[in-house]
Amino acid sequence: MANDATPVGAQLSGPSHVDTELRDLARDLFDQFREMSFDGVGISRETYGPGETQAMEVIERLGQERGFATRWDAARNLIVRLEGREPGLPVVASGSHLDSVPQGGNFDGAAGVIAALLALLAANENGPPLRPMELFVLRGEESAWYGGPCYFGSRALFGLLTTSDLQSRHRQSGKPLEHHMATCGVDLAPIKARRPLIEPRHFHCWAELHIEQGPVLIAREKPVGLVTGIRGNVRHRRIVCRGEAAHSGAVPRWLRHDAVLAMSELLMRIDEHWRILLEWGEDLVVTSGIVETNKDEHAVSRVPGEVTFALEYRSQDTKTLQSFGNLIETECKQIGERRGVTFDPGERVYTEPARMSDDMVSLLGAQAEAVGIAYEIMPSGAGHDSAIFANQGIPSAMVFVRNDKGSHNPHEAMEYEDFFAGAEVLSRALQQAANDPREMQG
Amino acid sequence: MANDATPVGAQLSGPSHVDTELRDLARDLFDQFREMSFDGVGISRETYGPGETQAMEVIERLGQERGFATRWDAARNLIVRLEGREPGLPVVASGSHLDSVPQGGNFDGAAGVIAALLALLAANENGPPLRPMELFVLRGEESAWYGGPCYFGSRALFGLLTTSDLQSRHRQSGKPLEHHMATCGVDLAPIKARRPLIEPRHFHCWAELHIEQGPVLIAREKPVGLVTGIRGNVRHRRIVCRGEAAHSGAVPRWLRHDAVLAMSELLMRIDEHWRILLEWGEDLVVTSGIVETNKDEHAVSRVPGEVTFALEYRSQDTKTLQSFGNLIETECKQIGERRGVTFDPGERVYTEPARMSDDMVSLLGAQAEAVGIAYEIMPSGAGHDSAIFANQGIPSAMVFVRNDKGSHNPHEAMEYEDFFAGAEVLSRALQQAANDPREMQG
Repeated sequence: MANDATPVGAQLSGPSHVDTELRDLARDLFDQFREMSFDGVGISRETYGPGETQAMEVIERLGQERGFATRWDAARNLIVRLEGREPGLPVVASGSHLDSVPQGGNFDGAAGVIAALLALLAANENGPPLRPMELFVLRGEESAWYGGPCYFGSRALFGLLTTSDLQSRHRQSGKPLEHHMATCGVDLAPIKARRPLIEPRHFHCWAELHIEQGPVLIAREKPVGLVTGIRGNVRHRRIVCRGEAAHSGAVPRWLRHDAVLAMSELLMRIDEHWRILLEWGEDLVVTSGIVETNKDEHAVSRVPGEVTFALEYRSQDTKTLQSFGNLIETECKQIGERRGVTFDPGERVYTEPARMSDDMVSLLGAQAEAVGIAYEIMPSGAGHDSAIFANQGIPSAMVFVRNDKGSHNPHEAMEYEDFFAGAEVLSRALQQAANDPREMQG
Repeated sequence: MANDATPVGAQLSGPSHVDTELRDLARDLFDQFREMSFDGVGISRETYGPGETQAMEVIERLGQERGFATRWDAARNLIVRLEGREPGLPVVASGSHLDSVPQGGNFDGAAGVIAALLALLAANENGPPLRPMELFVLRGEESAWYGGPCYFGSRALFGLLTTSDLQSRHRQSGKPLEHHMATCGVDLAPIKARRPLIEPRHFHCWAELHIEQGPVLIAREKPVGLVTGIRGNVRHRRIVCRGEAAHSGAVPRWLRHDAVLAMSELLMRIDEHWRILLEWGEDLVVTSGIVETNKDEHAVSRVPGEVTFALEYRSQDTKTLQSFGNLIETECKQIGERRGVTFDPGERVYTEPARMSDDMVSLLGAQAEAVGIAYEIMPSGAGHDSAIFANQGIPSAMVFVRNDKGSHNPHEAMEYEDFFAGAEVLSRALQQAANDPREMQG
């Protein structure tokens, strides 16, 4: 690929956006965040909690010091604005979240906020751009605090929070999200009325930098990834396979209905279909992350009569998700008949895939090539606020930064050099977009 | 088979041993046992507990009323003796146990004790046999009360209880077996010294009637089974498969080390080998009764990094157990290499198979055919005290009685007619053996 052949820095078009001063500032901010949020093991900044607010206030103060306008919306997202020469034009927006999982890492979320801030500062150096630029510091992106639901800040922006979201219980306090939101000063009235706090047409485009949460960039030896789409997923938290419990010594093979063997056969069939579909060029990942025989009756010397297991599959492609679901259903039926067991799929939760904007991906790719930064074109397997923006029709994109050891743990290992490479690409692309009068395609 | 062709009762050689009086007595004893041991759900008679003692005392009193000699050995097993015309000859012995699992059924164990008592009573009707006959009411056969170890009464007979057995903790009191044994009046000195309480040469032969704990006789539509061997087994309580936990969306298939898929593949390979070995004529059952991903780290959206599972396989044949173990080891190695996971087999517990005496099985079969009772020749998948007797070189056999709904639960469904058929076969065979001066082969 073209980007592989280009040595880093070979085609630098002008000086770096992310210069020594901005690099020092970024390092300093990461250090401040780590210090204020260290919990003894990792980083903890609760969704709609005081640690999250405190970190946001650091960004607010810094924005104000540098002369930017700052505001908090009704959902207490923070917006920092670099005014454009034409203040009425749709804005070029970027940002990410500042909450973390419990005992998480320092880069998940924070990297995207800091990179967007650097982009505003770099743009400001060059005099006001044509379009306004805005940094969105979003709240409540993580699912860990309220047992599943997430993207609260970005979904509130577009009037998408449901009663069920607002009633989700905090893992420790047991109180509902709306209580903790109110404590943070959120105005619940428009949110409960599901009124958008901002219109999609407010945005010219959206871009989010984020650490990669998988090992692809490490394996490919590239510092930066450009995301083509955010995988949607289908989740079954609890499929129950029911056979018949029996004495493990006294019941011969032909009279058994072994739930564990039936589940194993299903997973092997799924694994084989997955392998073939990848060769077919489909985007797909499949996981059964939780498996448990029934504690009330299982024993070493008992044919297992019941096993429950989770099943999740993800794809950038809606049709792939649908067809794969049908395939699994057929397999369950066939294996069920052959082995005399049933599969009860339980609740099926669907999250829509989000397609990133081709225009935005091209723009980012061109900027990376201009400064000789190698990149990988890839899907995002993890969900992100950017999916919410994209599904509102806003031309959106994501920049991934190489990161060892995954995310959601204290061992996240993003190298600053890789972060600066990603921030450079982001800043150049945003500045280009902010000075381009043409509209973009979503 | 010959026994299929013979209608019930067609070739009755003399009147039934189990006549109306003995049938009424048997029903009455089962009723008494049920009444004294009902726990609200099922039958509970603890291993070395007061309920077990109480039920044994019912048999002791009845034996004394009918003029038999009774004695308790140092392990507090009860022995009821019908003296023979030659008191010095090795005895024809039969019996079973009177403890039950918690919330168990009324027939597991008790059926064998009552059937042996009926045999003594029937023999006594015909005047003293040549050889003495003894009913052994054994203690502590069930593994449920002390977390695994079992056959305490029969193993004590032959000096086989270990320090580890005596230290096993009671599931509720938490106290060691030796404490509860002492409470029942057991003399621990010879048991701790591992001195046999009785010599194998004391026995001419041993036979035990027991309800079938599997569904074979139901499926074959036969009232009685004659057991050729008691399956030994290899147990791995906790095999740990370790791969690598990872984000379920962000890590592609080629970078995964999924522990659940690896385990599923192993179980499928084992299932396939099992199928082929059965066609090959081997005796084998295989079970993975407990499966669990690691609670501390598993999640719906996480590639499972660790799963533990139990594995048990049973066979009448020592060589089959050994070869199957080697096969599993090879599969673990190959799957481990291919999928980048490891299998840690943990502790391997081996229980030796026990071969029943061909002479005894022939004798029982001939008696069944003589009275036209259809029988199935079959292995015992469950373990029994009889395995202890057989492995002491005592010619041993078991008679199974058809029983719906398995054992170890309140729903055991043995029909009295089937019990009487089994008791008839047992009584005739024991009486024949007690009047035969020839030695038997083990």
